[in-house]
Amino acid sequence: MKDELSSAVDFTKSNGLITAIAQDSETGEVLMVANMNAESLAKTVELGEVVYWSRSRKRLWHKGEESGNVQKIKEIYLDCDGDVVLLKVAQIGGAACHTGKRSCFYRKLENGKLRDVGVQVFDPREVYKK
Amino acid sequence: MKDELSSAVDFTKSNGLITAIAQDSETGEVLMVANMNAESLAKTVELGEVVYWSRSRKRLWHKGEESGNVQKIKEIYLDCDGDVVLLKVAQIGGAACHTGKRSCFYRKLENGKLRDVGVQVFDPREVYKK
Repeated sequence: MKDELSSAVDFTKSNGLITAIAQDSETGEVLMVANMNAESLAKTVELGEVVYWSRSRKRLWHKGEESGNVQKIKEIYLDCDGDVVLLKVAQIGGAACHTGKRSCFYRKLENGKLRDVGVQVFDPREVYKK
Repeated sequence: MKDELSSAVDFTKSNGLITAIAQDSETGEVLMVANMNAESLAKTVELGEVVYWSRSRKRLWHKGEESGNVQKIKEIYLDCDGDVVLLKVAQIGGAACHTGKRSCFYRKLENGKLRDVGVQVFDPREVYKK
């Protein structure tokens, strides 16, 4: 039973993967970008929480599975050519980045230099205990 | 003469390409997603207008070159692992999508269906004349 989303997505362009953008549904801040395959997109819709595909670990990655910082789906949009989804989310714990910062986009170009403008929410050494 | 941005970007993960997100600097609306190679990123910084790399046409793509709807750079951010740039832009003409809609993300998932919630800014038949 395919919904209209999974039928409309084009998984052929990048070896079965599409790009997924997580955006804070309240503030509009872009939090992170990762990949999805068909299974992770279906899981995301089913769970109402974001499940990416980890290219490095080659497995489904239920965002927040270690840190608790899951992303609750508020809205899902598909782009014109069907290879990017935009996920409007509520970011539990207030931080999307593995560095403990609110957003992964914490390095800003200023006069040819990259300045750290990130908001530190948690200490990754405490959250990702070995 | 490499600036800190181009040195920090990781072009190795996707055959010389990174993902670029254009976001309206005023409203926070995500407008489109495309690719960049090193040359297009350097051109973007130099021009102050967004220059993508077109995978289909295999050439630099100065966004708006046909439609006039260029994207003026306001801010540039790099993500934690260096393979995505977030471009905060002023979208000239008010539309980023080749369909004439404001954003490429005009299809919203609602109850298993994709609904067109896009704002139509121009008629592509008039703008992209053959």
